[in-house]
Amino acid sequence: MSLLVVGSVALDSVETPFGKADNVLGGSGTFFSASASHLTPVQLVGVVGDDYPMDQLEPLRARGVDMAGLEQAEGESFHWRGRYRHDLNSAETLETRLGVFSHFSPKVPAQFKTPDYVFLANIDPRLQLDVLSQVKRPKLVACDTMNFWIESRRPDILELIKHVDLITLNDGEARQLTDCFNLVKAARWIMARGPRMVIIKKGEHGAFLFKENSIFFAPAYPLEEVFDPTGAGDSFAGGFMGYLARTNDMSDANLRRAIVYGSAMGSFAVEKFSVQRLLEINANDIATRVSEFRELVAFEEELRA
Amino acid sequence: MSLLVVGSVALDSVETPFGKADNVLGGSGTFFSASASHLTPVQLVGVVGDDYPMDQLEPLRARGVDMAGLEQAEGESFHWRGRYRHDLNSAETLETRLGVFSHFSPKVPAQFKTPDYVFLANIDPRLQLDVLSQVKRPKLVACDTMNFWIESRRPDILELIKHVDLITLNDGEARQLTDCFNLVKAARWIMARGPRMVIIKKGEHGAFLFKENSIFFAPAYPLEEVFDPTGAGDSFAGGFMGYLARTNDMSDANLRRAIVYGSAMGSFAVEKFSVQRLLEINANDIATRVSEFRELVAFEEELRA
Repeated sequence: MSLLVVGSVALDSVETPFGKADNVLGGSGTFFSASASHLTPVQLVGVVGDDYPMDQLEPLRARGVDMAGLEQAEGESFHWRGRYRHDLNSAETLETRLGVFSHFSPKVPAQFKTPDYVFLANIDPRLQLDVLSQVKRPKLVACDTMNFWIESRRPDILELIKHVDLITLNDGEARQLTDCFNLVKAARWIMARGPRMVIIKKGEHGAFLFKENSIFFAPAYPLEEVFDPTGAGDSFAGGFMGYLARTNDMSDANLRRAIVYGSAMGSFAVEKFSVQRLLEINANDIATRVSEFRELVAFEEELRA
Repeated sequence: MSLLVVGSVALDSVETPFGKADNVLGGSGTFFSASASHLTPVQLVGVVGDDYPMDQLEPLRARGVDMAGLEQAEGESFHWRGRYRHDLNSAETLETRLGVFSHFSPKVPAQFKTPDYVFLANIDPRLQLDVLSQVKRPKLVACDTMNFWIESRRPDILELIKHVDLITLNDGEARQLTDCFNLVKAARWIMARGPRMVIIKKGEHGAFLFKENSIFFAPAYPLEEVFDPTGAGDSFAGGFMGYLARTNDMSDANLRRAIVYGSAMGSFAVEKFSVQRLLEINANDIATRVSEFRELVAFEEELRA
């Protein structure tokens, strides 16, 4: 099944307690694509400036990311510079230069206009809505967002969520959007306004999938070395959506597996800077990590005789 | 199998965003006993003052908590007064009056001296060691501790952990004790110094069981109403140890179930003030909650044909 993602393609400069990386591939669209392309072909819509190191995107193209929707505009690419302290939980943004991204107006190429699965990564909700208006109604539309848009574009987010099947957001954002501290109530609040599914990401504490009548939880994989948390959420989304698009099965059992694939891909993303680790791993690594997830949470309810 | 717990038996005055309760049953030994006694008989060692409402302990006695080791001393009982803010994550201690607890010297009655399972709840590690010297080596000894002892009695804790099979502590305490931010490393650090198992409790984010070659994780149950978090950790320990003592099976599969029973009992404890909810529930409620835990984390790794 076809999978379309619209998001940022950026250059990141990141400092963690373990080292630093300058001007490496970053952005929600990039992490999502690097992750999802392990599972299914990806159609990417985004924008970069004329300074972007296009050759560094080749490994993504080679693994099935169609970049026909990646516009190269005159000007500077989106640059993000950030730092993580010892606890690695929250990034401190040192600098954001939006560059060409500030005038981004997503144009979905003709050949991408009938996607089966769509992920609207974290961009202005007005642009997310605009993308939906450009495509035939997909089987499943998911969106992400962030605190900045919840503060500055709340009415647009409320309009957007009427039109999506699923929203992913972190626990802080869920509380901010709904004014419910309790995450079960927050998820209900959102589901009453459109999406039939809500994924609440808790970073190192795992992720919930809420549906009308069920809750599924997957922990984050307890890694001994978390190197750089940048892109974990988008890699999670890429694993989740990639698995759904590959299997084209929206049963509860398959949605649960998709969350675990998302968690697995998120756990790889943080092992190295940028998309480096995502580009190294293969199907066997992913299957092994998924098994490790099962080992991590599996228990038999009944006593053996 | 017999299960011995040594801990505090206190009176709590608690304020949460949802109400307040004055001078209600509290203390680690009390919550542990109320929880574990759903699964197995419990032998309690502790001390109360002459002001303690002994009649309120009757429901515990009635469900199989043997109080032969509960000394009633002259003076005031241990009082704790605390408040939880909106996020319910950490208690603000408003007042602690140790009373008779400040001179507590646990005396294990003759009939409790051959316990199969022992839980040394959060008290001075010197007293925890002293209790061990009073009993025949049990099948399994577990201990809890807290930041206060890690700061003030570090050498004693390091001595104590040489003699226990398992230690339970929360994530902050694990980091404080080991100086490792990463919990996998923190658990390894501890296991290199004695215990063959470490349980790291993350409150609303669940709990890890670390052993030499495996990690198991159980989430906290996503309740819509968390009423009062007091005693959640001790109720967790009571469910865990109670299940182990009942089944007397230390296999990996059974330890995992024990963690889930612990999580289930912790989730009940927070639904009402004090031990109120723990005293209401029955075996069927517990079995239902354990099933709900399974539903929360279960996924099938393989695609169905």
